[in-house]
Amino acid sequence: MKLASLKNGKRDGALIVVSRDLTRAVAADDIAPTLQAAIENWQQVVPALQARSDALNAGTAAGAFAFDQTKVASPLPRAYQWLDGSAYLSHVELVRKARGADMPKSFLDDPLMYQGSSDYFTGPHDPVLVESEDWGVDLEAELAIITDDVPMLTKQDDAKRHIKLLMLVNDISLRHIIPAELNKGFGFLNGKGVTAFSPVAVTPDELGDAWNGSKVSLPLTVNINGEKLGAPLAGEDVYFEFPKLISHAAKTRTLGAGTVIGSGTISNHDRTRGFCCISEKRALEVVEHGEAKTSFFRFGDRVRVEMFDTSGASIFGAIDNEIRPYAS
Amino acid sequence: MKLASLKNGKRDGALIVVSRDLTRAVAADDIAPTLQAAIENWQQVVPALQARSDALNAGTAAGAFAFDQTKVASPLPRAYQWLDGSAYLSHVELVRKARGADMPKSFLDDPLMYQGSSDYFTGPHDPVLVESEDWGVDLEAELAIITDDVPMLTKQDDAKRHIKLLMLVNDISLRHIIPAELNKGFGFLNGKGVTAFSPVAVTPDELGDAWNGSKVSLPLTVNINGEKLGAPLAGEDVYFEFPKLISHAAKTRTLGAGTVIGSGTISNHDRTRGFCCISEKRALEVVEHGEAKTSFFRFGDRVRVEMFDTSGASIFGAIDNEIRPYAS
Repeated sequence: MKLASLKNGKRDGALIVVSRDLTRAVAADDIAPTLQAAIENWQQVVPALQARSDALNAGTAAGAFAFDQTKVASPLPRAYQWLDGSAYLSHVELVRKARGADMPKSFLDDPLMYQGSSDYFTGPHDPVLVESEDWGVDLEAELAIITDDVPMLTKQDDAKRHIKLLMLVNDISLRHIIPAELNKGFGFLNGKGVTAFSPVAVTPDELGDAWNGSKVSLPLTVNINGEKLGAPLAGEDVYFEFPKLISHAAKTRTLGAGTVIGSGTISNHDRTRGFCCISEKRALEVVEHGEAKTSFFRFGDRVRVEMFDTSGASIFGAIDNEIRPYAS
Repeated sequence: MKLASLKNGKRDGALIVVSRDLTRAVAADDIAPTLQAAIENWQQVVPALQARSDALNAGTAAGAFAFDQTKVASPLPRAYQWLDGSAYLSHVELVRKARGADMPKSFLDDPLMYQGSSDYFTGPHDPVLVESEDWGVDLEAELAIITDDVPMLTKQDDAKRHIKLLMLVNDISLRHIIPAELNKGFGFLNGKGVTAFSPVAVTPDELGDAWNGSKVSLPLTVNINGEKLGAPLAGEDVYFEFPKLISHAAKTRTLGAGTVIGSGTISNHDRTRGFCCISEKRALEVVEHGEAKTSFFRFGDRVRVEMFDTSGASIFGAIDNEIRPYAS
């Protein structure tokens, strides 16, 4: 089942069901008005949503219309919680190596994770608005899950069943703002700008054999202005899988239904797979050539993030954001 | 005008208007179903809410009932954003001094602020549930504001008009979890447990002369098990006032309506005013006697946070949380 939120002038959009091949859609706001409402009542609404999805895929859904990826908001246009992990330590290692820092051993025991801003998510085809190119605008391409209610102290083994939906993420990171902010010791605030998600969120069964209950074994493809930045394998080198990220977040509190948890930038030790952020490419340039050659985003640049199944079909639709100046 | 969210079995409660003296209330969910809905449509709903408030205070509101502070959730039972500043540098200075660290000069230019969890706020009279006393459970008593939509790059002078409501906060802090977490460099996640707010949120005019558009000039009273921990003056030693905190948060992104911003632990350089957290009292004990004598919370302890006007009337009602073990 694939779900999306049609822009309708309201903050949370209107829930729609999208066909497996992403060509058709049908309204579902009579079942649950928004995706947030659906996730809060997941067990109750799934049968009706699944029936509508089945009818849509069979070509028998009344009121079906052409699906346009540019007409939707992020699946949750805003959320009550967005937590972003750093599950791929090869990302952490490389970025630290470029600045001459080792990775602390403690990073192997306990996931890095920060509380991100979730009051407004940028749409998958919306522009990313920044004041200045000097902010050092970068992407971080990731996978994310949406959970239902997770009790405090949920263990890793019990965490799997709380994963209800998956999405792609473009977590915009402002590389020239982050260092001073992290030095203050309280984590990210200004340094993580907006975050955009894929046009659709999918139930785990849509991934077939590529989903083992904990991780997705497919490449994540990133293009900038039509040129490939990389296609690292999301199933390789993932040190902390999603159930571990959930149990870490729930150590001292419940997680409310609709909590979004990101994997962090997908990254492989095999650098020939390319990159899911510009920063890693620059870090490798520093390590290999002594200086970074690739620049961060300029106004007018476009970044595209997409995941294809083994037959070449897009699973989540594409995130396709253009970097533009903010006009206040 | 004083607003609250009556617990009704739903996640966001039902909007009610509360009388100035906190003795009576009347339903307002016909005007806006929830406080979040009200803040999203503030200009449109304020006239009707004000009329109902006026009728309630005049004793002419139909359907008025006795207001019971134990029957309400936090004014926003959950929010899309909770940002907590550290506006009172005397708190930062003292806590750092106790561990032998100076305060960096940069802390004078740029507010410390973290993105907190907002998917579930504890009710003002609900228990605070923790796994273990070994977490080092502490309170942080603060003031907070609720904003409407704040555009990116809003300057301090323009920020004032986005302050729509004020509340008190008890930001539960897990002192024995925080150090290792902050050492990882990504800010708070497990170390800040739950957060509780006062029974009512009030419009700034309810504060009269105690509100100058930027800060509240009244003491904030904290009692633990009926004994006073302190009553620091919220209008003294506040280095970053609310408009500055708003403009800091909005440097790289919009803030959605319903954003909650906290002042950080209220703290005075005059230590005879007492404390709004146990940690500061312990820090002073370390500085003066070489070791801390006051312990963090034990199960069964109760913490009460309240603010009184110059005539002795409670403005926001009381936060009154008991610390209890979490039964999973």
